Amino acid sequence: MDDKIYVSYNDIHSAVKRLALLVTASEFKPDVIVAIGSGGFIPARILKTFINRPIYAVGISYYGIDNKPTELPQKIQWIDEVQQKLTGKNILLIDEVDDTRMTLSYCLEELLSHHPQEIAVLVIHNKKKRKQAAFPPEIHRYFAAFEVEDRWIRYPWDAECIEDHDLMAEKTRKAMKEDTQ
Amino acid sequence: MDDKIYVSYNDIHSAVKRLALLVTASEFKPDVIVAIGSGGFIPARILKTFINRPIYAVGISYYGIDNKPTELPQKIQWIDEVQQKLTGKNILLIDEVDDTRMTLSYCLEELLSHHPQEIAVLVIHNKKKRKQAAFPPEIHRYFAAFEVEDRWIRYPWDAECIEDHDLMAEKTRKAMKEDTQ
Repeated sequence: MDDKIYVSYNDIHSAVKRLALLVTASEFKPDVIVAIGSGGFIPARILKTFINRPIYAVGISYYGIDNKPTELPQKIQWIDEVQQKLTGKNILLIDEVDDTRMTLSYCLEELLSHHPQEIAVLVIHNKKKRKQAAFPPEIHRYFAAFEVEDRWIRYPWDAECIEDHDLMAEKTRKAMKEDTQ
Repeated sequence: MDDKIYVSYNDIHSAVKRLALLVTASEFKPDVIVAIGSGGFIPARILKTFINRPIYAVGISYYGIDNKPTELPQKIQWIDEVQQKLTGKNILLIDEVDDTRMTLSYCLEELLSHHPQEIAVLVIHNKKKRKQAAFPPEIHRYFAAFEVEDRWIRYPWDAECIEDHDLMAEKTRKAMKEDTQ
């Protein structure tokens, strides 16, 4: 039995739409979207359809040259030349998953140093597990589409064959439905 | 009759996979992927699955403050602090569509000023139409998954309802099959 959580593109699209409605219904009015790459790129682009704000991309990796894992995040790309524009702004920071919380916390600290008005965090999946980092105290708003067990999540953009992936995502949906019945 | 071309996420995923095979089979060995945002974000992230290279994002918009259209592209985000790292590198520049060719040409000129080894262009759709800008003479490689008529292309990430969109994409696929029979 494959214990991974498979998610289809349409699952992601619908989840982002639901999150956009939650954000819109909240009192938080984002001025800009900041996408953490590369996992946040696709959710961020979909969110732009429902919350039409400019997207700034930041690239973070836990792999250095030669694909060797690194302990701390490495900046692939940052937005230094734009960051001063973030002062006083409401930022919606997006990633696909809140796993150990390390990447999100790192990005939040970096962004906070430029004195935005507020930063809210939006993810598709939050893994219910002990986090290795805490959010800075300035963070009060957190939007997650799914609260999931600490299992491996297979996103559609990582699929070698998208048709096979969709069959597995169908199984995941059925299993989750049974769990909640 | 709806004359637009509807494309599903799985259509995009499979098209990017085919393009990745073409790139891999060519003599062009990309060092980095540059995604033109926001349309290039999703194809670029999928491409990363098949060609594992870092993604740099650039944001380009033809809409200024207050969503008013502008004649020339506006930089939402650029990669000044990274651009020097592009010197001598093979760059694969990605966007979702080659329409008027204005955005691609603008980005190519900007990137060429930093003396990369070579830049190749990759798009999902090329519209067969008179282009308003030409590629710089340094550009020799061009990968497009589909050559299409000058019709409105509806991408999945812009869908209000992804299920309705998929039904339309199914119709587009059927119509295109009939065209080629």
